[in-house]
Amino acid sequence: MKLRELGEFGLIDLFRKKFPAKGKRIVLGLGDDCAVLKSSPKNLLLFTTDSLMEKVHFDLSYFSCEDAGIKAMAANISDIAVMGGLPLAAVVSLGLPKKMEVLDTLNLYSGMDKMAKRFGFTIVGGDIFLSDKVVISVALLGEVEPKFLKKRSGAKIGDSICVTGDLGESQAGLELLQSYAKHLDDKKDKSAFGRTFNKEVFGKHLRPVPRLNESRELVRKLKINSMIDISDGLLGDLYHILEESKVGARLFEDKIPISKKVLKLSLFLKQKPLDYALYSGEEYELLFTMSNKAEALRRLKAKVSVIGEITDKVLRMEIVGKNKKVRVLGKRGWVHF
Amino acid sequence: MKLRELGEFGLIDLFRKKFPAKGKRIVLGLGDDCAVLKSSPKNLLLFTTDSLMEKVHFDLSYFSCEDAGIKAMAANISDIAVMGGLPLAAVVSLGLPKKMEVLDTLNLYSGMDKMAKRFGFTIVGGDIFLSDKVVISVALLGEVEPKFLKKRSGAKIGDSICVTGDLGESQAGLELLQSYAKHLDDKKDKSAFGRTFNKEVFGKHLRPVPRLNESRELVRKLKINSMIDISDGLLGDLYHILEESKVGARLFEDKIPISKKVLKLSLFLKQKPLDYALYSGEEYELLFTMSNKAEALRRLKAKVSVIGEITDKVLRMEIVGKNKKVRVLGKRGWVHF
Repeated sequence: MKLRELGEFGLIDLFRKKFPAKGKRIVLGLGDDCAVLKSSPKNLLLFTTDSLMEKVHFDLSYFSCEDAGIKAMAANISDIAVMGGLPLAAVVSLGLPKKMEVLDTLNLYSGMDKMAKRFGFTIVGGDIFLSDKVVISVALLGEVEPKFLKKRSGAKIGDSICVTGDLGESQAGLELLQSYAKHLDDKKDKSAFGRTFNKEVFGKHLRPVPRLNESRELVRKLKINSMIDISDGLLGDLYHILEESKVGARLFEDKIPISKKVLKLSLFLKQKPLDYALYSGEEYELLFTMSNKAEALRRLKAKVSVIGEITDKVLRMEIVGKNKKVRVLGKRGWVHF
Repeated sequence: MKLRELGEFGLIDLFRKKFPAKGKRIVLGLGDDCAVLKSSPKNLLLFTTDSLMEKVHFDLSYFSCEDAGIKAMAANISDIAVMGGLPLAAVVSLGLPKKMEVLDTLNLYSGMDKMAKRFGFTIVGGDIFLSDKVVISVALLGEVEPKFLKKRSGAKIGDSICVTGDLGESQAGLELLQSYAKHLDDKKDKSAFGRTFNKEVFGKHLRPVPRLNESRELVRKLKINSMIDISDGLLGDLYHILEESKVGARLFEDKIPISKKVLKLSLFLKQKPLDYALYSGEEYELLFTMSNKAEALRRLKAKVSVIGEITDKVLRMEIVGKNKKVRVLGKRGWVHF
């Protein structure tokens, strides 16, 4: 059934029945003009929004509607994670084409709902409007204990610069997917392409996992002075920390954790693996600076690498190569306009 | 200057400088991954989102960018008002075309900012993305004292049905504006049209005023059992109250407050003035039911009319005409798909 047959209110009713908003902090969920939530006296509120637009952030020729929903919610959860907090409730504004299949809209909502449930919260309200392209705007409310609040500002000279996980897969995955989408029109190449790259390679681009559990472990166990998530690329986001903290950074090439998948694909990708690690956006890994020594990382469950140190050279980013030569880096990252 | 010349981060910097987020409840405003706010232990949180899409909700041939910003924020404030609460902070997600003038984006943001300031809160965060058409997604956080919380459910048999202000101008204004937009291509007619209708007539459609102050007065002084704002039309929104409260409604034609402007324009508009009052959406007037008698309205500052009563005939809406005949009404309102 197409959306124009079901109508706006029909779809809202369907979402409400399939995905009821229940939780101990929810006084009133979907179905009124606002959701009503219990506040928590000890905590600070965190408030963020992030949107995905079809053909800009995702392409439905290789994203499923569920992928798009998952990714939109993941980006917002990641914003709460980097502040050191926990998500509480989301509202979603969906722009949907009238010829869209109702089943696809349910899959999209289901993707958002799954991510919310996985990370312990609920979608409590929303708005639906007509749009030529799919637009997913999520606003997420979270909470943080004042002692755990982390910001972009606060990096100190001498801090270790750290990153969770391995880098480069999101951009490499995107390039493979774009190449795959082209090959879809070309049946001969399609099967060769399919044999070469299994779906797992694209996982981080299609369905990123926000580092919420890792963040909570880190803020409890380390002395973190600044934190951000990698959405614009390692260098782009490191630059945000440098701007807000008025410091510089020195990275060590041999310490940067490049994804093994990216290393393996580097011949096909025709770019240096290091460039993927430095510039790949939408990684949703945590980038932070800490006063602790590297030994403090040993007892962590989360995978964390020390990749550099904070310097007093304001806004200067440099990298010490494997050959010990120092190069100055630009902040090139993902730019929308 | 066009947006593509300034870039995404340039625009964010510009917004941040021109519209800083400050307030006693704001720990951290624009410029980090989340805004950070102080919560209030005694109050419940209200959380809502509402989006406007170019060519669906507004047309830039007769909306200024500032109008669009004002209207997007007004719709969200209205949602907080009907719950009996006060707004606390907003985040905005803006989809903007890359060929848009930077000045226009500033006017759009300024419209939202003006409304926020007028109603005592601040925009604390946002997201900007590339879009063919302008998309304005606002998410608004508010608070309400538990004793003042109002819902759609709760209407009781025998309640008086009340509405603030006068009805019909938003839809009448829209039709005039659409006619005006056509005349813009026709220079001869344009001046005749301009002489006939001054801009004030369109005010409610372009720059609606949410009834926040009125709502706060009403929840303090009256025994309100249910409340909603008129965004889908008087009958469409009344129907939402009936659904949630499982009751019926009887309206009295001679009690419905039709805008004088609509009465005056009715010949030109070629529709019955009453139909504008019953079906005009985006009025943002408050529609509520109360246990009080009509006398209780006399001491109010807000203009409120008793227009009917709640009945035990579940989901039935009827109207008693000026001729005392009873007609059953449909819920026809604004439908998106």
